[in-house]
Amino acid sequence: MTGLDRKPLRLAIAGLGTVGAGVIRLLEENRALVEARAGRPITIAAVSARDRTKDRGVDLSGFAWCDDMAEMAKRDDVDVVVELVGGSDGPTLALARDTLAAGKGLVTANKAMIAHHGMELAGTAETNGAGLRFEAAVAGGIPVVKGLREGASANAIDRVYGILNGTCNYILTAMESSGADFGETLADAQRLGFAEADPAFDIDGVDAAHKLAILAALSFGAQIDFESVEIDGIRRVRAADIAQADALGYVVRLIGVADVEQSTAGPRMLQRVRPCLVAKDHPLAPIDGPTNAVVAEGNFSGRLLFQGAGAGDGPTASAVVADLIDLARGDAGAAFSVPTQQLVAMPKADSGARESRSYIRFTVADRPGVLAEITAAMRDAGVSIQSLIQEGEADGADGVLVAMVTHQGPVRNVRAAIEMLAGSDSLTDDPLIMPILRS
Amino acid sequence: MTGLDRKPLRLAIAGLGTVGAGVIRLLEENRALVEARAGRPITIAAVSARDRTKDRGVDLSGFAWCDDMAEMAKRDDVDVVVELVGGSDGPTLALARDTLAAGKGLVTANKAMIAHHGMELAGTAETNGAGLRFEAAVAGGIPVVKGLREGASANAIDRVYGILNGTCNYILTAMESSGADFGETLADAQRLGFAEADPAFDIDGVDAAHKLAILAALSFGAQIDFESVEIDGIRRVRAADIAQADALGYVVRLIGVADVEQSTAGPRMLQRVRPCLVAKDHPLAPIDGPTNAVVAEGNFSGRLLFQGAGAGDGPTASAVVADLIDLARGDAGAAFSVPTQQLVAMPKADSGARESRSYIRFTVADRPGVLAEITAAMRDAGVSIQSLIQEGEADGADGVLVAMVTHQGPVRNVRAAIEMLAGSDSLTDDPLIMPILRS
Repeated sequence: MTGLDRKPLRLAIAGLGTVGAGVIRLLEENRALVEARAGRPITIAAVSARDRTKDRGVDLSGFAWCDDMAEMAKRDDVDVVVELVGGSDGPTLALARDTLAAGKGLVTANKAMIAHHGMELAGTAETNGAGLRFEAAVAGGIPVVKGLREGASANAIDRVYGILNGTCNYILTAMESSGADFGETLADAQRLGFAEADPAFDIDGVDAAHKLAILAALSFGAQIDFESVEIDGIRRVRAADIAQADALGYVVRLIGVADVEQSTAGPRMLQRVRPCLVAKDHPLAPIDGPTNAVVAEGNFSGRLLFQGAGAGDGPTASAVVADLIDLARGDAGAAFSVPTQQLVAMPKADSGARESRSYIRFTVADRPGVLAEITAAMRDAGVSIQSLIQEGEADGADGVLVAMVTHQGPVRNVRAAIEMLAGSDSLTDDPLIMPILRS
Repeated sequence: MTGLDRKPLRLAIAGLGTVGAGVIRLLEENRALVEARAGRPITIAAVSARDRTKDRGVDLSGFAWCDDMAEMAKRDDVDVVVELVGGSDGPTLALARDTLAAGKGLVTANKAMIAHHGMELAGTAETNGAGLRFEAAVAGGIPVVKGLREGASANAIDRVYGILNGTCNYILTAMESSGADFGETLADAQRLGFAEADPAFDIDGVDAAHKLAILAALSFGAQIDFESVEIDGIRRVRAADIAQADALGYVVRLIGVADVEQSTAGPRMLQRVRPCLVAKDHPLAPIDGPTNAVVAEGNFSGRLLFQGAGAGDGPTASAVVADLIDLARGDAGAAFSVPTQQLVAMPKADSGARESRSYIRFTVADRPGVLAEITAAMRDAGVSIQSLIQEGEADGADGVLVAMVTHQGPVRNVRAAIEMLAGSDSLTDDPLIMPILRS
């Protein structure tokens, strides 16, 4: 270790929410081991946040305060900017661009920004010899970005999937154990801090989709394509669906799945986030509460699973500082494992052509002929029904529940059947389709 | 990328068993992606094995053949030696020493050699600026060495544990589902290729202990201390024990656990491998078959779990080549995450002083007074019994089975009770103690 190498890695931290404060706390509490593993001290030169006076439980007096975080990219006393502000565009994106353009490292927990602008930022990083790292953007404290980029680097991966949103997993598993319905459970989760006051990003699947788009790019050597992710959230999952799934040997989880199919025109990528039925003996079935888990299937490694806390200040700070230690050690290799020019633009595969088994739940008027109407539509669309349950009792006040599981068949046939039934006044609510996760 | 950087990384592969052949196959099948991620080609210059004529299903004609693998360390056309021969000492250790002393990289799957000589080899690597990597030595294809060394690098870890031997896990979970006894299940496992013809290293816990010693050093920043691992294998676990555990809400798994306790004299380390009762809702309980899983508890990350195939040519080759890609990228940081001089020598903690709940199974003569004798010994040793089951039916032909679970208490008290009973002719076999894994 030369004298030069022992120069500290000097940070500017933009954003002092719970994660920013967590990073400061970690660098203080674990100072000796961080320095030993990094091979040199990691110090904080400057910080920035909206409110300078707020008590964050950490001592900021030793750090320069930046009223405008934009200046962090220009400071001579800063080697790496740690971006913990959030927001995919605006001043956050400007800071990221300027930091990398200035040849400084950027470590971020910002999944939305990477999902939308990751290719551009990785390109800027390459051009300027700067390190770009975002372990904290996916699955909190789980080192899955490193696991895919480096740990599984010898493999062609053609499928990556997992439980990527702790709020949804908390809600679904709480519904599972309590039997309560979605609205009530969401309210509980908000009270307990497992869901935001505005939970839309989480429960509508957008947060999971951001993470999935990043994982897919890393796994497949593909360009990030957030726009093509098919997204369906968990708002419409009912207690009755979870009970039916249980009776059939499944649990319900919000699953993000990305895979690659080969076609004569080259590889196509399919990325989907939606509630799925997961067989009780699948490794993702026991994952409960706000835990995240990611499965990657490598052509030599076989199935790898990474599991841990998907959010929280401690786990996220752990991921941020692991990135910083890599940069301090001089490991600033390609952010997406290969140079951006080598990342392949993969068109979206046709999800309708995929074969799947599906769970379909209807809520229907309690009168004769309804079941005949539904099963006729299934027959006409070529959907083969494996099992069907009609619950005599009404689910809430909106009708009788009819749940079925189909045989393996093209997804487009199920969609066609639902389409046929769309105008029917026999249905008192839109049907809910949940695919059965292939093991 | 400069022209210089594009020079191939040139390998010599010592050992052409299934793993060696797997590495050759991987480098062929995944050539393009390995080169893209490594930033340069990875080529094979030379190979070595006992039998030159054996058909291994891979084409060796393009590689130099070394009759004596020792020459690999001296060849000018070799940058990295891949050691897949096995054996902790002898010619294998000599090759490892010479390779690193010559400033060449060493990638090995050899857990025994690293467990016994890892400190010396890491020191030699440092002195000579050579890279030493051993991802494949622990838990097959799971990137857990990287996960601990780099992914969790921001954390103080005070406990690491897991299912580290696929053969034992296969046998225990097969016993669980079939109800068959150990001997019969081992024979099945041997027939199916899940156990070696000489299974002692696996079923007596030595293989798991090698891996545990490596994980402990990585996790705690400690010097490897294989000699102090307390080892107990699975030979004495009976079908009846698994049935009792099941009735109590547990499964039986061979678990390696290492932890650090602080004392006034500095940190002490305790490393133990033994069959444990694992609560059915613990993340390790659903791990079945030859799968491995490692849990690390970081002070910021919380509980991280890494899971995958613990052995096999594909997974092991995946781990070997991931190490090679790191070396090709120029990431040859400290093998144990910090320079060897900074690794702390941690004396062994006293396992007897630990508090635990324990499962104890006796096989006893079927006559009056035996239960009184056992419970008196427990009382005299200060062991508090939480539940006790006496099975009327004999287990095999060797006596009646008495199983109990103790309340939390010092392990030394349980040992003292067993000691008191050691001479008794009421016992028809040595008692079996299995601790209940703390969650």
